[in-house]
Amino acid sequence: VYELFYYPGNGNMAPHFLLEEIGAPFALKLVDRTRNEHKSAAFLKLNPHGLIPVLVDGETVLTETPAICLYLSDKHPGAALAPPLGTSARGHFYKWLMYLADTVHPDLLIYYYPQRFTCDANGADAVRQAVENRLIGMFQYIDDQLSHTGPYLMGEHFSLVDYYLLMLARWARGLKTPPRQMPHLARMLDLVCARPAAQRVIATEGLAEPVY
Amino acid sequence: VYELFYYPGNGNMAPHFLLEEIGAPFALKLVDRTRNEHKSAAFLKLNPHGLIPVLVDGETVLTETPAICLYLSDKHPGAALAPPLGTSARGHFYKWLMYLADTVHPDLLIYYYPQRFTCDANGADAVRQAVENRLIGMFQYIDDQLSHTGPYLMGEHFSLVDYYLLMLARWARGLKTPPRQMPHLARMLDLVCARPAAQRVIATEGLAEPVY
Repeated sequence: VYELFYYPGNGNMAPHFLLEEIGAPFALKLVDRTRNEHKSAAFLKLNPHGLIPVLVDGETVLTETPAICLYLSDKHPGAALAPPLGTSARGHFYKWLMYLADTVHPDLLIYYYPQRFTCDANGADAVRQAVENRLIGMFQYIDDQLSHTGPYLMGEHFSLVDYYLLMLARWARGLKTPPRQMPHLARMLDLVCARPAAQRVIATEGLAEPVY
Repeated sequence: VYELFYYPGNGNMAPHFLLEEIGAPFALKLVDRTRNEHKSAAFLKLNPHGLIPVLVDGETVLTETPAICLYLSDKHPGAALAPPLGTSARGHFYKWLMYLADTVHPDLLIYYYPQRFTCDANGADAVRQAVENRLIGMFQYIDDQLSHTGPYLMGEHFSLVDYYLLMLARWARGLKTPPRQMPHLARMLDLVCARPAAQRVIATEGLAEPVY
């Protein structure tokens, strides 16, 4: 039985979607951020960075959201969450996952925690503003790509990168130009949200509307 | 024949190391940044973000450094650059690759280009200073982990994440406390640099000493 340590709406969303798609038994373990449990000694034993999510699979304790996603996908090839190994499609799948994980995701963290990225006590607003502009450009780039090769990031084939993007789009729903205002992205996010597995996660985590 | 679009010392270092380890035929294609060729129409066709590296494998054109690394590793399992799919070791390998790619690597980009992360025309120094402190903490964390489970990130087994870390350590050589001053990290980087494949890349790209 997998254990997913989570807090509603956090980085656990992506692996939670996948666990629901896979259909294997799993248990959700709440890490109560309102009580700072993600910095507790017990949780720091699981993840010394004090970051959510953590996946526990028997003796295997995993951190880093995209790593957990790849691990789950590899262990359950029948769920077809990623293209087969060694194919061109797998390469493009990695390209999208990495773009989301190493470019969009880090900028979203700066957007939420700009004060961590400047030593100027009054500098956070200018950091957030710069990063907000960068993020809008990134989502517009994704929207443009989807206009050529949609409806999903991998074309006709749904894959886990679409769930990863849904998670990031939710975090970006407060941008001046949010993803839902971008037509090809909105179409893709609607398709993903309509999946029964997505609906179960939205209900279980209590994700308020609009989802993205 | 693989084609790797590169500029000495850029993100191509990690895939270049892997191509030398694999031993498959490949051609290096210089993208002359001193002439702004990474923003040329021809290069933007390969990577609309104008970022180096790009790997071309027949009809497959790949961007995103960690994606290129995973793709090459998957296609050449004999080179043993990553643990087998579906194992606990593969999960931990993903965890390290993602930590380097989604946490350390993005902060290094802010360290080099702080002006992109603030709208305050005078704010770049305060951004760089904050990120430099963050980066030193990250390398110290890695050093501490290696003290328990080294010599490599995956313990006794060398893997491609060690090359990825060597690339990041090179970029971090100007930090107030650079990786080479951290004993377990320095030991691991020395082991990696001593590999014949690493030596060939250092010579071909003309990477000045100290390498890290």
